[in-house]
Amino acid sequence: MTIHHFQPTHYHNTLGAHEPVLHIADGDTVVTATVDAWGRDAHNQQVAARPNPQTGPFYIEGAEPGDTLAVRFDRLTPNRSAGFTKTLVAPNVVEPEYVAELPWPPKGERRLAEWYVDAQAGTATLISPETKLGRLTLPLAPMLGCFGVAPAGGQAISTVTSGEHGGNMDYRGFVTGVTAYLPVFVPGALFFLGDGHAVQGDGEIVGTGIEISFDVQFTVQVRKGKRIGWPRGENASYIFTVGNARPLDQAVQHATTEMLRWLGEEYGLDPVAASILLGQCVEYDLGNIYDPAYTMVCKLPKRFLK
Amino acid sequence: MTIHHFQPTHYHNTLGAHEPVLHIADGDTVVTATVDAWGRDAHNQQVAARPNPQTGPFYIEGAEPGDTLAVRFDRLTPNRSAGFTKTLVAPNVVEPEYVAELPWPPKGERRLAEWYVDAQAGTATLISPETKLGRLTLPLAPMLGCFGVAPAGGQAISTVTSGEHGGNMDYRGFVTGVTAYLPVFVPGALFFLGDGHAVQGDGEIVGTGIEISFDVQFTVQVRKGKRIGWPRGENASYIFTVGNARPLDQAVQHATTEMLRWLGEEYGLDPVAASILLGQCVEYDLGNIYDPAYTMVCKLPKRFLK
Amino acid sequence: MTIHHFQPTHYHNTLGAHEPVLHIADGDTVVTATVDAWGRDAHNQQVAARPNPQTGPFYIEGAEPGDTLAVRFDRLTPNRSAGFTKTLVAPNVVEPEYVAELPWPPKGERRLAEWYVDAQAGTATLISPETKLGRLTLPLAPMLGCFGVAPAGGQAISTVTSGEHGGNMDYRGFVTGVTAYLPVFVPGALFFLGDGHAVQGDGEIVGTGIEISFDVQFTVQVRKGKRIGWPRGENASYIFTVGNARPLDQAVQHATTEMLRWLGEEYGLDPVAASILLGQCVEYDLGNIYDPAYTMVCKLPKRFLK
Amino acid sequence: MTIHHFQPTHYHNTLGAHEPVLHIADGDTVVTATVDAWGRDAHNQQVAARPNPQTGPFYIEGAEPGDTLAVRFDRLTPNRSAGFTKTLVAPNVVEPEYVAELPWPPKGERRLAEWYVDAQAGTATLISPETKLGRLTLPLAPMLGCFGVAPAGGQAISTVTSGEHGGNMDYRGFVTGVTAYLPVFVPGALFFLGDGHAVQGDGEIVGTGIEISFDVQFTVQVRKGKRIGWPRGENASYIFTVGNARPLDQAVQHATTEMLRWLGEEYGLDPVAASILLGQCVEYDLGNIYDPAYTMVCKLPKRFLK
Repeated sequence: MTIHHFQPTHYHNTLGAHEPVLHIADGDTVVTATVDAWGRDAHNQQVAARPNPQTGPFYIEGAEPGDTLAVRFDRLTPNRSAGFTKTLVAPNVVEPEYVAELPWPPKGERRLAEWYVDAQAGTATLISPETKLGRLTLPLAPMLGCFGVAPAGGQAISTVTSGEHGGNMDYRGFVTGVTAYLPVFVPGALFFLGDGHAVQGDGEIVGTGIEISFDVQFTVQVRKGKRIGWPRGENASYIFTVGNARPLDQAVQHATTEMLRWLGEEYGLDPVAASILLGQCVEYDLGNIYDPAYTMVCKLPKRFLK
Repeated sequence: MTIHHFQPTHYHNTLGAHEPVLHIADGDTVVTATVDAWGRDAHNQQVAARPNPQTGPFYIEGAEPGDTLAVRFDRLTPNRSAGFTKTLVAPNVVEPEYVAELPWPPKGERRLAEWYVDAQAGTATLISPETKLGRLTLPLAPMLGCFGVAPAGGQAISTVTSGEHGGNMDYRGFVTGVTAYLPVFVPGALFFLGDGHAVQGDGEIVGTGIEISFDVQFTVQVRKGKRIGWPRGENASYIFTVGNARPLDQAVQHATTEMLRWLGEEYGLDPVAASILLGQCVEYDLGNIYDPAYTMVCKLPKRFLK
Repeated sequence: MTIHHFQPTHYHNTLGAHEPVLHIADGDTVVTATVDAWGRDAHNQQVAARPNPQTGPFYIEGAEPGDTLAVRFDRLTPNRSAGFTKTLVAPNVVEPEYVAELPWPPKGERRLAEWYVDAQAGTATLISPETKLGRLTLPLAPMLGCFGVAPAGGQAISTVTSGEHGGNMDYRGFVTGVTAYLPVFVPGALFFLGDGHAVQGDGEIVGTGIEISFDVQFTVQVRKGKRIGWPRGENASYIFTVGNARPLDQAVQHATTEMLRWLGEEYGLDPVAASILLGQCVEYDLGNIYDPAYTMVCKLPKRFLK
Repeated sequence: MTIHHFQPTHYHNTLGAHEPVLHIADGDTVVTATVDAWGRDAHNQQVAARPNPQTGPFYIEGAEPGDTLAVRFDRLTPNRSAGFTKTLVAPNVVEPEYVAELPWPPKGERRLAEWYVDAQAGTATLISPETKLGRLTLPLAPMLGCFGVAPAGGQAISTVTSGEHGGNMDYRGFVTGVTAYLPVFVPGALFFLGDGHAVQGDGEIVGTGIEISFDVQFTVQVRKGKRIGWPRGENASYIFTVGNARPLDQAVQHATTEMLRWLGEEYGLDPVAASILLGQCVEYDLGNIYDPAYTMVCKLPKRFLK
């Protein structure tokens, strides 16, 4: 149960079988940092390239293809005060004919909003641009937008998208205290993480949360011989499964199928019992509807699972 | 502000310009009843044909095309003890290759679960079939699955589906205390309602909530000259908009566009301000992912709208 | 085998159980006319309201729910010289971010292209606007955009969309010589037709073909007890099935399932034989990707069906 | 204009920046071979791993990011007599509720059809299983299912899917005589090819064409400074663009946008002229509706482009 302190010196824009930055044991904890989606660190210095540069990969001893990697997010804390967001809804989240009505900036020009993030106070405050919102202040809800493991089949997949291996899911439910479960495809699993958001609405519909660098602590555990199909997770109140695909309908299909499998394997519920339970008790969250693959999360309150 | 007591004697399976059952004034309240999705009333007697037979239509004096009809659900109460649900997830909510793994009953045979609904105790208890769930007991959360107005263009649209006019949205957020807003397409608006669920999970993924008949009280209000594009609603904590379409992506587009319009028209937020606010504060709920048109709901907490 | 000459005096904008304009017998032929999508007749006079006003309905004696109505299009001929099209691709057929790059006219303003249709010469020539295309001349390929029967369940469905009953499929394959098959949902079937296009590309991606009024001749036949799920058709070279839904993926699913059923019922091919055949020989056409329901057509060359 | 004869000794299951097997010059021709989708060569020996093992990559001297690589398929010839196909439509191409009606083999068992391919006679004949189809004989139409270049951003993308870089598009239009255009993302472009089909229906709806190994000859050309967004192609009669995405709707959006860009850049047609032309003259082909990304092709007859 070692605690490793790891200061990253380089970052990755794909999740793949890259050279590990650290080997850690099953049960170990890592204290490290992530840069923001555009590669700026705690000092707001550009130290990595876009998009969503990842810290890692961490090689977890003993993890083999067919296992599951559990990662508990012990702490996710913004480590600087400057955050930013985009300022216009993405064109794919509005009606096609409405796109032309929106005030797009001239081609190639990107307009950003600046936020002042006060980790002590637990708030993010809008600094610019000037709008009718004034100094809008929101409670912090720090979450990891992008994390995952090296994917199957020798692939290296961009951090703009997601899949069975995790990746850029941009789900606001990945907060401190959550345990995420990821399928292991390569020896050592090769865990990556990055793209912290101080706050984010469902769907990441402007294409960003409040993008910021993080101090992170996480703890890993290997579930030997436990095979899962899609990312799973749990917090104090829920178990949940994550589907990443387009359209959202397919993301729902993956997440729901994964939940049915989970209820069968670990809770002894056959498809009829699982259907009766889910039918009246399931909840769905929208992860992102912005990235190349969209994300839907299928949740079941733990109180229904004695 | 008259209170009308109306006992239905016939029902409709389409929302269209049918003969009104009652003319009521702007501001009036109606106390009435709805039968369940398959046409059984408070005595569990079959009195109407499937699907989702509707009480109404109610003609609201003064409502004209281009207005908005506000309907507050004052009370939605199951009025019998027998509820039922289907017992297997719908094939369209799981991965296509998983469909063949599910224990489908022989063609033409429909298997139902029975629930005992205790309105006093506020619970629904699973009676049959025998599964590992035993006598699963859930808190009641009564909601209206299908309601709406006569649609545009002289259409009569089946109560299995939904659109700009409302219809079979199966959104668990339409509960007592909520006010729904509907666009008016014909003189008198012609309001219909039915398909009560004692409980329902997000998505209505087994194809039913706990289907049951209701005692209902609602109050109408006409917003003259207020033109909306899609159903809207509000409760104590949220304003929300509803998109009905396939795939879910398109339902999100309708709901999000409608919310942007709302924020512009009534809260003075231009698209940039509205985007900055929604981007970090929006929430989405999944209505149904079972009916011909799926439903997504775009919600904004009222606390961000002073 | 009577030939009826019918001159319409009113039109419908929904397909529903409207009062028949004519009762005809199984095997009869009708010679009639259709107005264009915006309601203008052979004299370019506005005689009906938008959208896609339909001639009919024709009541076919002996047609009952559960039967199939066969309609052979004996002749589809533009009967005036003035045709029109829209002039910009629909926003839903391009990438969302590209929509804002297109030269949309000011809101509320609609820009049209005019075409001179010469039925003798068999050509359509672009008259305006002035573009680099000059006097582009295309060969005529007259097709019916919208036809169908009264739908199931007492519905009246707008002529802007489509479904199991047919409707606004905008498939360029519905030309002279084709026989279309439609499921019968009400006594007499109630056949409607309209929305002729002198020419149309796949997908109807600008939202119109070359819209024009038609002289039409068609012949009906009732297939007693033959139950189909979706529109079917055949020409000299192909049998085909039509799926109407969104997204296109679902339209493909309907059309393919209907083709598998057809091959099973009428050609004795079990699902394995049908799959082997379709897998290597099937063709798909895109009907429309503009209307509320999109259309995909599944085709099999008849030469593979001895 | 050298002609290289290259005999592959190893294969790739991802398209990525792998070590080139050969450096060739702009204008050069390569004569080589591809193995079938499951890795069997001209002698039906297993020499590579699934899925869709690729010959290459070929490094084209002078190709730089931002250029376009033109590849003309000079010859695509099956080089053995044994082909195979799957025997049941994929579950995602039929209605979800129909999936359970199909005769799926026991889990883990894969049933194949065998075909005898006679390159001399130009035919493929069904050998097994025994069905009502008997010895169905089809004309050969050899096509390349999967080819492309190393993708952007340091990715290595599985040969089961496709994207801007090409990949597993399974479009029956990629036959002898066609020139494909691919965006260049890395120095040398790094061209891969494989997955030959002796015959294939639209959509690859059983999940295979008639899978077989090929002798291939192709010729490359670099278009310096020509930047494209998606694969393009041309044959004697058409220019075409390829969109790869889910749902099909999005594939259509990519292909249509790419065609509009092409017409603007190279044929001087502004969006209005291009829309008027495409609206009445465009054709769409369905590539595959089986792989993780679906493929739609937007085609314009060259006769309309003087």
